Amino acid sequence: MEEIRIGIVGLGRLGRIHAENIALNIPGVSLTAACSVVKEELDYAREILGVEETYISYEDMVNSPNIDAVCIVSPSGFHTEQIRLAMKNNLHVFCEKPIGLEIEDIEKTVEIIDSYPGLVFQLGFMRRYDESYRYAKEMVDSGQLGDLTVIRCYGIDPSSGLESFVKFAGASNSGGLFADMAIHDIDLVRWFTNKEVKRVWALGKNAAYPELDKVNELETGAAMMQLEDKTMALLVSGRNATHGYHVETEIIGTKGMLRIGAAPEKNLVTIYDGNGVTRPTSQHFPERFREAFYNEMGEFASCIQENRNPNVSAYDGLQGTRVAEALQHSIDIQDIVDLHPVSSLK
Amino acid sequence: MEEIRIGIVGLGRLGRIHAENIALNIPGVSLTAACSVVKEELDYAREILGVEETYISYEDMVNSPNIDAVCIVSPSGFHTEQIRLAMKNNLHVFCEKPIGLEIEDIEKTVEIIDSYPGLVFQLGFMRRYDESYRYAKEMVDSGQLGDLTVIRCYGIDPSSGLESFVKFAGASNSGGLFADMAIHDIDLVRWFTNKEVKRVWALGKNAAYPELDKVNELETGAAMMQLEDKTMALLVSGRNATHGYHVETEIIGTKGMLRIGAAPEKNLVTIYDGNGVTRPTSQHFPERFREAFYNEMGEFASCIQENRNPNVSAYDGLQGTRVAEALQHSIDIQDIVDLHPVSSLK
Amino acid sequence: MEEIRIGIVGLGRLGRIHAENIALNIPGVSLTAACSVVKEELDYAREILGVEETYISYEDMVNSPNIDAVCIVSPSGFHTEQIRLAMKNNLHVFCEKPIGLEIEDIEKTVEIIDSYPGLVFQLGFMRRYDESYRYAKEMVDSGQLGDLTVIRCYGIDPSSGLESFVKFAGASNSGGLFADMAIHDIDLVRWFTNKEVKRVWALGKNAAYPELDKVNELETGAAMMQLEDKTMALLVSGRNATHGYHVETEIIGTKGMLRIGAAPEKNLVTIYDGNGVTRPTSQHFPERFREAFYNEMGEFASCIQENRNPNVSAYDGLQGTRVAEALQHSIDIQDIVDLHPVSSLK
Amino acid sequence: MEEIRIGIVGLGRLGRIHAENIALNIPGVSLTAACSVVKEELDYAREILGVEETYISYEDMVNSPNIDAVCIVSPSGFHTEQIRLAMKNNLHVFCEKPIGLEIEDIEKTVEIIDSYPGLVFQLGFMRRYDESYRYAKEMVDSGQLGDLTVIRCYGIDPSSGLESFVKFAGASNSGGLFADMAIHDIDLVRWFTNKEVKRVWALGKNAAYPELDKVNELETGAAMMQLEDKTMALLVSGRNATHGYHVETEIIGTKGMLRIGAAPEKNLVTIYDGNGVTRPTSQHFPERFREAFYNEMGEFASCIQENRNPNVSAYDGLQGTRVAEALQHSIDIQDIVDLHPVSSLK
Repeated sequence: MEEIRIGIVGLGRLGRIHAENIALNIPGVSLTAACSVVKEELDYAREILGVEETYISYEDMVNSPNIDAVCIVSPSGFHTEQIRLAMKNNLHVFCEKPIGLEIEDIEKTVEIIDSYPGLVFQLGFMRRYDESYRYAKEMVDSGQLGDLTVIRCYGIDPSSGLESFVKFAGASNSGGLFADMAIHDIDLVRWFTNKEVKRVWALGKNAAYPELDKVNELETGAAMMQLEDKTMALLVSGRNATHGYHVETEIIGTKGMLRIGAAPEKNLVTIYDGNGVTRPTSQHFPERFREAFYNEMGEFASCIQENRNPNVSAYDGLQGTRVAEALQHSIDIQDIVDLHPVSSLK
Repeated sequence: MEEIRIGIVGLGRLGRIHAENIALNIPGVSLTAACSVVKEELDYAREILGVEETYISYEDMVNSPNIDAVCIVSPSGFHTEQIRLAMKNNLHVFCEKPIGLEIEDIEKTVEIIDSYPGLVFQLGFMRRYDESYRYAKEMVDSGQLGDLTVIRCYGIDPSSGLESFVKFAGASNSGGLFADMAIHDIDLVRWFTNKEVKRVWALGKNAAYPELDKVNELETGAAMMQLEDKTMALLVSGRNATHGYHVETEIIGTKGMLRIGAAPEKNLVTIYDGNGVTRPTSQHFPERFREAFYNEMGEFASCIQENRNPNVSAYDGLQGTRVAEALQHSIDIQDIVDLHPVSSLK
Repeated sequence: MEEIRIGIVGLGRLGRIHAENIALNIPGVSLTAACSVVKEELDYAREILGVEETYISYEDMVNSPNIDAVCIVSPSGFHTEQIRLAMKNNLHVFCEKPIGLEIEDIEKTVEIIDSYPGLVFQLGFMRRYDESYRYAKEMVDSGQLGDLTVIRCYGIDPSSGLESFVKFAGASNSGGLFADMAIHDIDLVRWFTNKEVKRVWALGKNAAYPELDKVNELETGAAMMQLEDKTMALLVSGRNATHGYHVETEIIGTKGMLRIGAAPEKNLVTIYDGNGVTRPTSQHFPERFREAFYNEMGEFASCIQENRNPNVSAYDGLQGTRVAEALQHSIDIQDIVDLHPVSSLK
Repeated sequence: MEEIRIGIVGLGRLGRIHAENIALNIPGVSLTAACSVVKEELDYAREILGVEETYISYEDMVNSPNIDAVCIVSPSGFHTEQIRLAMKNNLHVFCEKPIGLEIEDIEKTVEIIDSYPGLVFQLGFMRRYDESYRYAKEMVDSGQLGDLTVIRCYGIDPSSGLESFVKFAGASNSGGLFADMAIHDIDLVRWFTNKEVKRVWALGKNAAYPELDKVNELETGAAMMQLEDKTMALLVSGRNATHGYHVETEIIGTKGMLRIGAAPEKNLVTIYDGNGVTRPTSQHFPERFREAFYNEMGEFASCIQENRNPNVSAYDGLQGTRVAEALQHSIDIQDIVDLHPVSSLK
């Protein structure tokens, strides 16, 4: 089987995880090109990862005859255009979430993606490739939990990043807590239940840094959502978990319930000391989801090789952003927001 | 110190717990009278607990010169009248939740209670006397968790009782899932945060027994509530936990979070077998809250002896029912319900 | 049923637990007499517990016509003589472990006890009355774990007491680590397996306070024991658990294994903070075994009322001390010690 | 940097794990040759892993000019000869444990290995490369636990393999429970404490299959070992864990204790159902130590590239087998066995 040659755009924290997986860890793929406007990032690609072609211009990169696919890890505002350009150049696309910032723009991009059925498009909802999540999904799909009634998703970033977030909160726009943090959780809700979100109500509170109120950002938010079959979904999103990177999902069914990551256990060690009996915790997403990032890129490669679609589609990205936007709208109007069913797409 | 002589009304499942604690386990109190319309219950009181005076009429009991206090564990519909009669007879009152079924009736009863400042009135919010809850409350009050942002309360009854609930759901009226199940959780929200509930939205789903829809009952419900200081509260109430009696409370603050009863561990045993590694679970409230029932009755006795008020007041009962009613109303109108601040009372 | 009137000797830390249970908590018993050479202890008995008769002389107490039973919580060296005197005076006896300090003396005392079949004798192996241990014992007896192969018992005191132990280690004689600490664990080994110990090897190490070597005391010891049916028993005894009071028992069988107290969880709270995810721990035996102390005294009362023997006998005390002595002997001779089967007794 | 070309001998269950890591997963190495007497194994190497050279004769393989190193995963009896031949051909060696079956033979092999200081030799003690074990080792080395007093190591295979073991127990010789199962645990004892074992006593019991007595095999064994500084080590080795693959290590120090793998948690899922609250478990070593196998082979590659020695040496293998042999000898003579310090080597 021939190696799949990938070009990456964006080599920040998450970009490097993908770049290293492609360049070093995943069989059957190679990192042949890298694009960035940051010189150090291209140096790193060349010197550490052995990337042969480096670009400042994304358009130049997708014109290279030496790549079969792109991995888009650039700022979210560039995604839709970069997806379009890649597909126009007959390249498979792996794109980090979200597809884009505006619903209309995403809808157009989904149409474009759909018009290239021969090209693989995969969105970076890596949690679907985490082993604990996959184990849970199999339990749910097998009916072991019965019919689902409640799903609860927590996504709380470690406190270590909060001060820096506050400092830059005025200058940059995160897109809002829910678009920024809850989009993975929204995807999990849809993935586990196979149902769409119908109504949402969202709340927020700034306790550690009340000044966030002024810049319309949130430290911690909560939301309740009703799905089309009345299943209930609860979300907590936040930026202030002192114990680490708290990503937890609970699924309650008529025959049992389960929790994934009730504690973000870092490893199999338990410590008995003056604090009590303690499990050390994962401190950030690269640690918690290392394997998921590896698995999702492996899946991207397999999909290309086997000419099939990954189980996470552009439509999933669109719906995730729709719900995130509804949550933010609910915060803004301080009321319930209804989502209208989408019949034209899917 | 003289022994406090108590008369009990109602000797069902919960009534017997209180009766045995009063008669056998708690120093300084004695069970001198019992009232019930069920002959077997009075036989039990006389023969097993050695109660000397047994009554069919509550009015007769509260007229006995041999009791200093009453313990009301009768059906909820009788509570307000029984409280009134007891206080008129100069008796201290321990009353199971709720104070009554109708807000107006409860409000009047709270006024009556307030008009007897020399009598102790305690409501059966026993969770406040559970050692795990007290430990958590001390952590919260000491500021160890910082400012609170989210509180999550689950109260899910074991599945073992569901079939019987369904069978009788049409005949009797539970008062609705939230009044029936969530009132303890609502009290915990108010107790931990020292804040009142401002807005609520509640949802429900019948999955195991869809026929519950017809009788306007719920197997599982969820609610989100906004408190007056923007703290967010999440509730899940249900009747279908296959693993046992799931009462869990989570408190998230700016400096840390805690969970009480993340698993309803029955004891300190861990089993390693073909199922995996398992903690056995508590199966019902008498098991889980045995100590709390004991402690709360001990507190009632101490309050009488020391002429002081317990930390759970009639007003707490009123507010709990107000919120439960708002949750049910939210289910009925399928919309957010606002609670109005109460300035006249408290 | 008439109340059982009990006289207690010894009102130290453990003595007070028993005294309060008898005086205040357990139905059907009363604390009518107390004996101590410490004035404050008798003041406490009179003033706090309402004990009517207080004695400096044990002999005087057992001659009182107002007691039916004694509870012996005096220093171990007095136990055998106090048991003898009580039984001579026709009193039931609850005695804290050990029965005595010397095997020969204990053997004689067991003979005396056996010569009063109408009197109840119970030894303070309270762990047998702990709910977690009882739950485990039922699992074992029901065959749920299959045939037992290994039992592991840890008994490690909290570090908080170590410094004081070291200070007094030269002056007083603890009887050795195993007699002092492991005797409960030895009893558990015999109780769970229903087998006697055949061969033992014990080791010790002083790491925190090497000066303990000089006074022939141990901070931490370990032992391996072979039972008569080849079941293997592992012990760790120590005085230096920084996380609290670590009493743990593991039972491995052909069909499963279990652990009691794998972590000495204080309650149902889990804390998520900068340390990780933590369970607070029990810090001392009064906390961990509060209920067991209550239950064992209740059993003593029931045995008297129902004229039957408790499931922990004088013989269990004798065998426990025999094994503890063999472990100490093993430390002294640095070799395996064989225990000879005892046919004359039991 | 040039790729390291590796030839593997042995493609059974463990051999395939190494082969796939070398061929597919680890950057900087390639699997260029494979040797086996089983045709299917060579087919697999060629067709699935793309290995170009396949051999029936190990001697032929080590003569190939196209390999820089060998990975020995053949039956233990061949190891010493294969190591010798590889080194004679100037090849780096990764060898599965044990180095050999006889102490004398291993000693000679260690001498040979030492005579090739320019070649890397690494033994397959993969647990040293597991992330949980590395985390614990760092805690120990940093002094966070204080001075060590006790180390406890469990290595219990899942019950699923027991029946098959019993069937073949007469025909093949496992080398005894301790050589077969405990050698990893012995290595952990030496690694964590940096001390050698001085005295051992071992016991065993056949409960599920008493017929194992006849073929001098053991279902479950336990051992206590005294290290040269009096640190105490406890081992349990077995073949009958119904809950899965139980590898656990506990380290007790003067300032705290820790456990690695107290439960062999498979992932981050917790299940709440009729059994209680359950963590699913790892069922076999490929699952539990997948990452460790990957890491250790990566370390082998790095050592070659960086011309340095791995932290697990041939001497570690020799000492591990010495202790395992002493344990087996202890079983045979039913007494303590003393190990003599080795001054000539190391």
